[in-house]
Amino acid sequence: MADPVRIGLLGRGTVGGAFAALLAERARAVEAATGRRPELAGTLTRSEGDFGVILEQSELIVELIGGTDPARSYVLDALRAGRSVVTANKQLLAQHGEELFGVAREAGVQLRFEAAVAGVIPIVRTIQESFGAVEIDKVFGIVNGTTNFIFSEMAATGAAYEEVLARAQELGYAEADPTDDVNGADAAAKMAILARLAFHTPVTLDEVAFEGIEQVKPDDLAYAKELGLSLKLLGVAERRAGGISVRVFPCFLYGGHPLSPVGGPFNAVMVEAPAITEVTMSGPGAGGVETAAAVLGDVVSILAGEVPVHETRERLPLVADVSSSFYLHLEVADEPGVLAKIARVLGENEISVKSVVQRGIGDDARLVMVVHECLESRFASAVEEIAALRELRSAPRFIRVIEEEFV
Amino acid sequence: MADPVRIGLLGRGTVGGAFAALLAERARAVEAATGRRPELAGTLTRSEGDFGVILEQSELIVELIGGTDPARSYVLDALRAGRSVVTANKQLLAQHGEELFGVAREAGVQLRFEAAVAGVIPIVRTIQESFGAVEIDKVFGIVNGTTNFIFSEMAATGAAYEEVLARAQELGYAEADPTDDVNGADAAAKMAILARLAFHTPVTLDEVAFEGIEQVKPDDLAYAKELGLSLKLLGVAERRAGGISVRVFPCFLYGGHPLSPVGGPFNAVMVEAPAITEVTMSGPGAGGVETAAAVLGDVVSILAGEVPVHETRERLPLVADVSSSFYLHLEVADEPGVLAKIARVLGENEISVKSVVQRGIGDDARLVMVVHECLESRFASAVEEIAALRELRSAPRFIRVIEEEFV
Repeated sequence: MADPVRIGLLGRGTVGGAFAALLAERARAVEAATGRRPELAGTLTRSEGDFGVILEQSELIVELIGGTDPARSYVLDALRAGRSVVTANKQLLAQHGEELFGVAREAGVQLRFEAAVAGVIPIVRTIQESFGAVEIDKVFGIVNGTTNFIFSEMAATGAAYEEVLARAQELGYAEADPTDDVNGADAAAKMAILARLAFHTPVTLDEVAFEGIEQVKPDDLAYAKELGLSLKLLGVAERRAGGISVRVFPCFLYGGHPLSPVGGPFNAVMVEAPAITEVTMSGPGAGGVETAAAVLGDVVSILAGEVPVHETRERLPLVADVSSSFYLHLEVADEPGVLAKIARVLGENEISVKSVVQRGIGDDARLVMVVHECLESRFASAVEEIAALRELRSAPRFIRVIEEEFV
Repeated sequence: MADPVRIGLLGRGTVGGAFAALLAERARAVEAATGRRPELAGTLTRSEGDFGVILEQSELIVELIGGTDPARSYVLDALRAGRSVVTANKQLLAQHGEELFGVAREAGVQLRFEAAVAGVIPIVRTIQESFGAVEIDKVFGIVNGTTNFIFSEMAATGAAYEEVLARAQELGYAEADPTDDVNGADAAAKMAILARLAFHTPVTLDEVAFEGIEQVKPDDLAYAKELGLSLKLLGVAERRAGGISVRVFPCFLYGGHPLSPVGGPFNAVMVEAPAITEVTMSGPGAGGVETAAAVLGDVVSILAGEVPVHETRERLPLVADVSSSFYLHLEVADEPGVLAKIARVLGENEISVKSVVQRGIGDDARLVMVVHECLESRFASAVEEIAALRELRSAPRFIRVIEEEFV
């Protein structure tokens, strides 16, 4: 078996701690995917560890300190020492990206940073690799979960900005000092990174025009509802005549826009290009374990090198009888007691009804219902019994329903 | 400069033709991303070309013939000859995947197939790479655009299945023989591939239970609307107690489900895992150029090997004054002629109004409007003039609007 791969971890805050835990938990999966078992060579925190020693003992460095200093010098040292680096540090990339990319190229090592933008949504990989030779026109979306949560709550409750911000802080969706989130600076850093990748042109943070959300009033959201609009803090990087435009601003969207249903702390990014029409990706934009998962994906990519489809790991049996919720459509004689008979059959099969619509049609009636999740074999028996009822006017029809409701 | 990389193309149908055109068009971008300029070594069609000669002259083979025979033997020969292969062939992978993956591993070459599932949506790469070490619980979604178009049209127009199918054929969203699309077999092949990748267990096409959409009546869609449901042909691969379940079936979704707004010929796939919560990706599921773009992404990945961030290609200027549509919120004295004054200011600045809501509040009135796209500098002048009007009761507030409406 190959030697384990030793990983040096810089930082052990929320994301660093989650990464250490996830790496331990998924070590065997990493080994199956890459041929090498990962282990932590050491962790650098404010009070513990020595960067030089950790670098010496590591094959790969994961930087989760945040901020530009001392993260920048650690990452530069690691790259120059021939170590590939994975980072989640958006400020570092937005401010010193060209320097770091250049050093990584010279050293012939990888610098990966999926977790720096839109959390677990694989937008960096998609732009760099899947759409690496496509002429991208526009990358835009919701890249700050704090502000998206605040707008969702304001729209749902009519509460004022300050009140909702306090709630977001309680729930952990906003930091104690939310300045960079609510004034748009956090989103601006992410858009600088995406614009650089999409357009192959240098874009630094100070070139991104950004506006925040502090000035939005509950009023605006109420009127917007009347106009059929929903409010998002958008980051937009696009080609415009003669160049590009990279901006962050609060923006209304019409219903039906792919970004308008994205609520709560989620992020979503769209990419537009003639060759791909448009692709939309959404998911959690932050959170310790989600960010750690994005970091782990980068680690796996570096270790895997090329991407073979690996041997199967086990043979999982296929489960035949699963549970589902169903829509059931029945045409019955419009006689007293029919519904009771049908309900009895369902009850005897331990199937409970979620909603019913009944409608008369001449001497007959149509009965359309949704039943809660039940074993499909039980539902099939119930339908068979119902089909045999004297009052049935045509064969029962049914279609599965995903019962989960979203808000 | 490095030698060009010679690509052998098998098949020149819709996708093959689009790929040849896209490769020529984007050759410089491929070179910028990979360091090597691609060129076609030869194309094999039913009437032209010799596979052995093309293989001999190529470094990489792109298989776009479709079907399992002779595609299987060509791909096997290419892999054994040490060529990496990119294919869009879902039937080939769903039926002979293990054999092909095994031969690719032995030969130490890559077999990539992003375009085989969900077109340009990078779901294969995301599952294999981004989530390569994550324990995936469930992969599900809309992986057949023909049936999604048919359901969208049936729901929107109330027309019957046969009628909508005919329209889909006219528009090129359904093939002359739509059997595999409408009976669920096409989606089943894609779900077999996704299940194999997500769960690392062999899944063959004949293990996937599938149902089609032929039996769905306009009635079902009408009642579903009353119940707040939308209809999709879903592919679901998930862990269930003791194993996995891989199925394709028509299914209702409640409003607010991330898949429910996905309409027309689009595809969308969701991945669920504890470490990532859920990630949703949507985009065109088919189409010649979109499928070709997915193939090109795989070609770029094979040529790039590792993924450095490349040097910037040019410096694009940032455009300062862009056009936007705006929401404008004004508090004004409730006097005759105020609206006219404001409208004149807007008109003089060549800004046209899309919609207005006016509401009295005591002696004042609130005027909320959306204006069509205009240069932001013009809008700023107009707002400045309006702010100076005697009748204004508070400073104007404005927020950008994405004007595009979706259906």
